[in-house]
Amino acid sequence: MQHKTQKEELAVPARMIPVPGHISPEAQAFLSNMGAMPRSAEPPPSDKQAWRKHLAEANGFITALIGEMAQNHPGEIVPHALSAATLYEITPHSFATRNAQRAIFYIHGGGYTTGGGLAAAHAALGLADLTQTRVFSVDYRMPPDHPFPAGLNDTLEAYRMVLERYKPANIAVYGPSAGGGLAASFCLKARDAGLPLPAACVLATPECDLTESGDSFETNGIVDVVLKQRLSNSILLYADGHDLKDPYLSALFGDFSKGFPPTILTSGTRDLFLSNTVRMHRALRRAGIEAELHVFEAMPHGGFFGKAPEDQELLAEHVRFIDTHLGRG
Amino acid sequence: MQHKTQKEELAVPARMIPVPGHISPEAQAFLSNMGAMPRSAEPPPSDKQAWRKHLAEANGFITALIGEMAQNHPGEIVPHALSAATLYEITPHSFATRNAQRAIFYIHGGGYTTGGGLAAAHAALGLADLTQTRVFSVDYRMPPDHPFPAGLNDTLEAYRMVLERYKPANIAVYGPSAGGGLAASFCLKARDAGLPLPAACVLATPECDLTESGDSFETNGIVDVVLKQRLSNSILLYADGHDLKDPYLSALFGDFSKGFPPTILTSGTRDLFLSNTVRMHRALRRAGIEAELHVFEAMPHGGFFGKAPEDQELLAEHVRFIDTHLGRG
Repeated sequence: MQHKTQKEELAVPARMIPVPGHISPEAQAFLSNMGAMPRSAEPPPSDKQAWRKHLAEANGFITALIGEMAQNHPGEIVPHALSAATLYEITPHSFATRNAQRAIFYIHGGGYTTGGGLAAAHAALGLADLTQTRVFSVDYRMPPDHPFPAGLNDTLEAYRMVLERYKPANIAVYGPSAGGGLAASFCLKARDAGLPLPAACVLATPECDLTESGDSFETNGIVDVVLKQRLSNSILLYADGHDLKDPYLSALFGDFSKGFPPTILTSGTRDLFLSNTVRMHRALRRAGIEAELHVFEAMPHGGFFGKAPEDQELLAEHVRFIDTHLGRG
Repeated sequence: MQHKTQKEELAVPARMIPVPGHISPEAQAFLSNMGAMPRSAEPPPSDKQAWRKHLAEANGFITALIGEMAQNHPGEIVPHALSAATLYEITPHSFATRNAQRAIFYIHGGGYTTGGGLAAAHAALGLADLTQTRVFSVDYRMPPDHPFPAGLNDTLEAYRMVLERYKPANIAVYGPSAGGGLAASFCLKARDAGLPLPAACVLATPECDLTESGDSFETNGIVDVVLKQRLSNSILLYADGHDLKDPYLSALFGDFSKGFPPTILTSGTRDLFLSNTVRMHRALRRAGIEAELHVFEAMPHGGFFGKAPEDQELLAEHVRFIDTHLGRG
C-alpha cells in the first residue's frame, strides 16, 4: 500500500436506501414517489434542433410545476424591457411598506436551458410573498440560440436597472441551482465591472462548478431523486466552447478576496450539488467573506418542490438572512 | 404510484467512487489508502470478555494514532483525581497569558469504548496548542465495566471542578465523535442540574443519535473510509438497556428551547455522521440557539487524521468560534 502510484477507487456495492422515517411525511412521500420517476436523456450539445424539441417538453413540465407552487403567492407582475431580455418586477400582495426601499434581484434556475418566460416571474412569487418585498426577476437569454455569455450579460443589464431605483445596501441577489451559479458569477462580473455589490447573496444549491468535479456528483448520483445525474450536455450547450473553469461560468474558481457579498448557502445531504455548495462555502470562508451554510437531512437538489415543512424551514433561513443584511433607509 | 401504501426504497447500483482530484494531495492519499483498510467486527454487547479483548487491540491502535498526532504539540499534563475518574489539565507550551482566565473542557471520542487513559489528554494537546489555552480533558469511565450513565456523570463532576476555577462565560466545551454526543448530552444534563452553561460548544461530527437513524448511515455507509459502518454494538454496550432516545444518550432528541450554548458543528460530505451533524444543527436553529455548520468536501468521519490542510482549516474554524465566544475577564 505504501508503494501505490495510482489512486484507489472505492468500491461501493449495490444497495437499497430506505426513505428515512424521521423526515416530514410530505418529504417521505416525495422521496418515495420521485425515486421511481425516469429522467429523459439530454440531446448532444451539437444537435440544436433536438435541443429545441427537448426543451419544449422540459419547459412544459417546469412551467406547470412552478405555476402550481406560485398559486398560493399572489402578486402583481410588471415586465420591463431590457435590450434583449425582460426584467419582471414582482410586487406581492403581502408587500410591506417598511420594505419599500428594498429589492431582491432574482436569477432563476433550470439548468441554463429552462425556466424562462413568465415562469421566471412565477418562480419568484413565493420569495416575494415571504419577504413581503419587491423582487426583480430577470428572464435572461438561454441556449441553444443564446449561449454564454448572453445570459450573464443580461443579468448585468438587469441589475443596472435595479440599481437605478435601489441602493446596493438594500439589494439582495438570489439564485437557485443554475441560477445560483449565475448569481455567483454575476457577483464576480459586477464587481469586475466596478458596480457596487448587493448587500446579501443567497445561493441555493448552486451549480457554481461547470466542470462538475465535486465528490457528490459521484456519491449522490442516483441517490438524488430530483437531479439524478450531471448536467453535462446542458453545460456544454450553455458554455459554447468557453473554458469551463472561467469564473464567469464557474464561480467556484473565482478570486473572492477582491470582494463578494455576505452569502448564505443551502443544500441537502442527498443533493447532487452538495459538494458545489460546501466547496463554495469554504472558498468564501477562506477568502474572509461572511458565509453561512445550511444542509437539510435527506433533501435532494432543490428540496421537496415546496411540498414539505423542510422547504419552508429552508426558505425561512433565506428570508432571515436577507432581512438581517439589507438596510431599509 | 398514487396508491402506494409502502415506502419506496431507492435502488442504487454498485459503483466505483474515485478519489477527487481537487482535494489536497494529503487528503487524496488518505482516502486512497484508508479505502483498502479492513475493519474488525465488534463483539456482541453481551460478551464482555470478548469486548475487553477487542478494546485492548482497538485502544492500541487509537493510542498510537493519537500519540503520533500529539507529537507536534508539546504541553504539560497534570492529572486531577475525580471520585471515580481523572481530569487532565493540559497547559500547552504555546500558552498565552491573555487566555489565563479561559478554559476548554474536552470530552474525548472513541465510540464510547476507547480513547481513555492518557490518550484522553494527548487527544487534547493539539487543541490546547492551537488555542494557546488551558484544556481540561476528562478521562470518563467506559464500558464494558462502566456503562451509561457513569461516563456522563463523570463529565458533570469534572465540569464542576473546572467551574471552581473559571467563569462559565470563559469556558468552551469541545467534543469529537462519541465525545460530541457526550458533550451535547452533558450540556443538557448540566442545564437540567442548574449548572451555568459553557459559553460555547464545539460538536465535531457528533454521535448525538444513538438510534443511528440518520440518512447518512445509509448513504455514506462504506463511502466513509474511516467509519465504515454503524457503532451498533458499542452503543448497546454503552447504553446498557436504557432507552436510546433518552436525550442524555441521544442529545438530538433533547429540548433545546430551555437553553443550550452557542454551537459550531462540523462534518464532511463522506461522513457517516453527516446526518447527525446537520440534524443537530437544524434542531438547535429551530430552538433559536446560535449554531453554525461547516461541511468539508469528501471528508470522512473525523477528517484525515490531522494529515491534511483540510484538517487544519476545520480546526481553525473551531478555534475562531471559541475565540469569538469566550470572554477573557
